[in-house]
Amino acid sequence: MLKGKVVGNIVSTNKFDSLKGYKFLEIQLIENKTLTDEFIIAVDRSISAGIGEEVLVATGSAARVGLDDVNSPVDALVVGIIDKIQN
Amino acid sequence: MLKGKVVGNIVSTNKFDSLKGYKFLEIQLIENKTLTDEFIIAVDRSISAGIGEEVLVATGSAARVGLDDVNSPVDALVVGIIDKIQN
Amino acid sequence: MLKGKVVGNIVSTNKFDSLKGYKFLEIQLIENKTLTDEFIIAVDRSISAGIGEEVLVATGSAARVGLDDVNSPVDALVVGIIDKIQN
Amino acid sequence: MLKGKVVGNIVSTNKFDSLKGYKFLEIQLIENKTLTDEFIIAVDRSISAGIGEEVLVATGSAARVGLDDVNSPVDALVVGIIDKIQN
Amino acid sequence: MLKGKVVGNIVSTNKFDSLKGYKFLEIQLIENKTLTDEFIIAVDRSISAGIGEEVLVATGSAARVGLDDVNSPVDALVVGIIDKIQN
Repeated sequence: MLKGKVVGNIVSTNKFDSLKGYKFLEIQLIENKTLTDEFIIAVDRSISAGIGEEVLVATGSAARVGLDDVNSPVDALVVGIIDKIQN
Repeated sequence: MLKGKVVGNIVSTNKFDSLKGYKFLEIQLIENKTLTDEFIIAVDRSISAGIGEEVLVATGSAARVGLDDVNSPVDALVVGIIDKIQN
Repeated sequence: MLKGKVVGNIVSTNKFDSLKGYKFLEIQLIENKTLTDEFIIAVDRSISAGIGEEVLVATGSAARVGLDDVNSPVDALVVGIIDKIQN
Repeated sequence: MLKGKVVGNIVSTNKFDSLKGYKFLEIQLIENKTLTDEFIIAVDRSISAGIGEEVLVATGSAARVGLDDVNSPVDALVVGIIDKIQN
Repeated sequence: MLKGKVVGNIVSTNKFDSLKGYKFLEIQLIENKTLTDEFIIAVDRSISAGIGEEVLVATGSAARVGLDDVNSPVDALVVGIIDKIQN
């Protein structure tokens, strides 16, 4: 999974029917506790992550498995909010 | 999903039969509101994105799921047009 | 598979039900015997890797195969501890 | 899909039986009309791309779908020759 | 597929049962005839590649297909030895 910070909500009117109703979040990836210049767009179905929160993102076919909707063209899914990391 | 700007249409006469009729777009990826030096070629079946528009691209097996054509060798699909991002 | 060092435990209360009970480790990737600035979050189900240990991580759909839980949105799994590398 | 230029033919005697008879091409990726330092090895089954031609390469499970041979360990496939890109 | 040079054997005692008996090789990727700073760990089941040899590596679900063992968490497999590249 990837770790990132929610930085925006994607507004998209013209999209696949099977994606209607899904919330798309823009997520800025974090490496070594630092925000990088890499971003990913992930669906958030059930976690309700807000702007500024740090999240776990599952990518690839794992995203569709988590959505329980194997017929939607989704390749990234917010699967949890990170409370903290214990070192 | 990835975020990018449509920058070209690929013309390809010699290609797989199962790809005939698909429109292939060249998409320049966007990170942090800036165009990067990374590009991807994605199929656009139903979104009809034009040059200059910002789009969402699903990659990997998600592309075939979205095409509803699991027998075509496609690994990237335009799944929506981005109207704006709310921060 | 990727090679990395365990550097932290992710604490996440709000996450997918199907992920409850799984241990999520933050792993810093190693290239050429040097720690890089790239990290991945992987599930550790049965290896019990501790902070500081070097591990093998399987990514993509291989992770769900290894978990024997194809319905969880997991894309990275700790599959072994590296004792040493013989050159 | 990725865009690249065919730069070589791989000669490999000792390989998986299921790969015998396949042609493996070395392809140098192109970004922004410039050859990069990234390469990929892809199977060419039906396109017959020659050295110097620009091709479309499908990656991941899409490659096996295109080969119509889901039992071969192939992760990249030449799926078309690029005639030109219209901007 | 990726191209790389075998640089080491991974010794791992504590690993998934389904991985026991597999040989794990550390492979340094090659781009443009030059060794890079990127490495991958791949299983070698039948090729018997030795230290210093250049190999083809299939990644992702292709690796499990090649192993003929879809239940092992493997994401990279040595599928051939490169004799030479004809330009």
